[in-house]
Amino acid sequence: MSFPVSTYTARLDAVGRLLDERGITAAILTPGPDLRFLLDSDIETHERFAALVITPSSRRIVVPGVDAAVLRSGVAGEAGVEVVPWNDGEDPVKLLALPAGATVAVSGTMTADHLLTIQSRGVQTLNATTVLREVFMVKDDVEIAELTRAGHAIDAVHRRVPSLLRAGRTERDIAADLTTMILAEHVAVDFVIVGSGPHGADPHHSYSDRVLTEGDVVVVDIGGTLDSGYHSDCTRTYVLGAASDAQQSAYRVLRQAQDAGLTSARPGVTAAELDTVVRTIIEAAGYGDYFTHRTGHGIGVSGHEEPFIIAGNDTVLTEGMVFSIEPGIYVPGQWGARIEDIVVLTADGCEPLNTTTHDLTTVEVPA
Amino acid sequence: MSFPVSTYTARLDAVGRLLDERGITAAILTPGPDLRFLLDSDIETHERFAALVITPSSRRIVVPGVDAAVLRSGVAGEAGVEVVPWNDGEDPVKLLALPAGATVAVSGTMTADHLLTIQSRGVQTLNATTVLREVFMVKDDVEIAELTRAGHAIDAVHRRVPSLLRAGRTERDIAADLTTMILAEHVAVDFVIVGSGPHGADPHHSYSDRVLTEGDVVVVDIGGTLDSGYHSDCTRTYVLGAASDAQQSAYRVLRQAQDAGLTSARPGVTAAELDTVVRTIIEAAGYGDYFTHRTGHGIGVSGHEEPFIIAGNDTVLTEGMVFSIEPGIYVPGQWGARIEDIVVLTADGCEPLNTTTHDLTTVEVPA
Repeated sequence: MSFPVSTYTARLDAVGRLLDERGITAAILTPGPDLRFLLDSDIETHERFAALVITPSSRRIVVPGVDAAVLRSGVAGEAGVEVVPWNDGEDPVKLLALPAGATVAVSGTMTADHLLTIQSRGVQTLNATTVLREVFMVKDDVEIAELTRAGHAIDAVHRRVPSLLRAGRTERDIAADLTTMILAEHVAVDFVIVGSGPHGADPHHSYSDRVLTEGDVVVVDIGGTLDSGYHSDCTRTYVLGAASDAQQSAYRVLRQAQDAGLTSARPGVTAAELDTVVRTIIEAAGYGDYFTHRTGHGIGVSGHEEPFIIAGNDTVLTEGMVFSIEPGIYVPGQWGARIEDIVVLTADGCEPLNTTTHDLTTVEVPA
Repeated sequence: MSFPVSTYTARLDAVGRLLDERGITAAILTPGPDLRFLLDSDIETHERFAALVITPSSRRIVVPGVDAAVLRSGVAGEAGVEVVPWNDGEDPVKLLALPAGATVAVSGTMTADHLLTIQSRGVQTLNATTVLREVFMVKDDVEIAELTRAGHAIDAVHRRVPSLLRAGRTERDIAADLTTMILAEHVAVDFVIVGSGPHGADPHHSYSDRVLTEGDVVVVDIGGTLDSGYHSDCTRTYVLGAASDAQQSAYRVLRQAQDAGLTSARPGVTAAELDTVVRTIIEAAGYGDYFTHRTGHGIGVSGHEEPFIIAGNDTVLTEGMVFSIEPGIYVPGQWGARIEDIVVLTADGCEPLNTTTHDLTTVEVPA
């Protein structure tokens, strides 16, 4: 168990209270981040239905029979959540025991297969992510400690990146080394991006057989999962030899923008306002068309979650929220750069959980 | 591109025809198996919305801007599917251009986040898996060739399993070797199950630090993905040294049941009838309580898909369907065994795509 059982019962209680306040009959929460958060469970049941059903006065989890034992021996058992197994050929949705006319909040990650089946039983459905976001979005001390540990874990990998970057190696070679290094610090690799030269201009590039050459700017964005289910995520940009004057100018602007994000992130600011602060600096310097994505995303037991730092998001940031600040500048077909830190909001500002240098780190090329 | 573009245009045409016949306005299909099948695309856009919209007379794909280029350079571009990018802060569901009152069929793997948003725009939704199953469920010659190749790939790994099983090694050691071997034959590892001794009695066990000892029966269930997106999946059971008389008796029954499945699988039989044939043999021998799951599942560009070989499934099996026949006997806390082949239905029977021995394979223990 990642935390004491009282942590989980407090979370379950909070969900029950919210449902009661809002007149929602039940929350129906499927495997994935929601079950990790509420039961410290990482069961995967694929197409077979499994769901934790929380009402203001009860908690049960309907799961395939093969998964019942592991739940009973974990948080669910200790926290008094009734485990209701079903076997192939039975109708698990019936076991949810939902009264006709009920209003239920479902996991945002539930599949349409399951959601359409639930809807066919005459209940109204809402998105639990919207309804329950306040339970998930603000992290408590034990969560912040885990996310801090995750930050240290991925920082340890970034410190070793310069030793991996050499002309003649492929992005794939480097990604293989990074995979090993991330696994040494985490229980799972979430993603590895090695975007060298023109590939750095694609924020969703993973890695390829491209061979690094002198002068390449290289975006390295990596993340993993700790045993507790909490995620790391950090981007730094490197250059093999010397960056051009144009690259140095653009990177200076990028760094100013990311710095401004760190300075401006504080309770009371909205997610949209924070996005605007960062974006305006890049736009004012003439690179606006090259910053094509949101400024950041929340992180916790899922890699991307609320609050999204994006235009239109009126969520007011509050103490304990944890999210990324990650502007980028992407010159199509040529090169790209991104600086990403995870930050936790404090009473009057924010504290970055990633602490390696924000410089465009130069990797020497042997003469 | 895995197949000629004409393969994909034929599939897209077939979906359009089915929608027209059934009076459905559009299919809205999200990344995952549906996009692999229809566009040979393996894009992953996570929480960002992406969907292929097929109507009887049009095809467009709405995707995050960062994913537009890879789609235009692939099947979507060649098959004339319009690529409609959106950027963070825009409303992608608006770009679906769904008329009010439309009836749309959505991917079974679409997340509730996206489905609830679509439903909020005043359209009726159905499950595309149900509506379009006939396009997906019956495989054509090129698909059968890929699934045959997948069968050979995983068989090559099973042939090497006896060299890995030794008293003193852990399940994790063996799983690490299997991972490497699967990757040598596939582009991705789907799952690795090494269930030794009592762990073999849990059909969903993966692997652990348990040390193998003489006399262990070991269930090895492995699968991977080919570059074309098609999956392999095969289980064999091994014994380290000599099986007990009770284990040998049970295994004989298991083998008879699996044999009966292979003999009985033919066009005209329903999925439920095939399940009954296999299950009845195990039940008649007194092991019914120890066979706790369905007999099998379809396989293709997803690892588990229709037809499910399970009680209550009245789907009539037809030529070209490809699915597993995988009965098991699980004695809780003691040991388990499973035999799994993928088979393709022919005009008058079925052909297994896995061809390694069905014996309980004895691994010699050095004296």
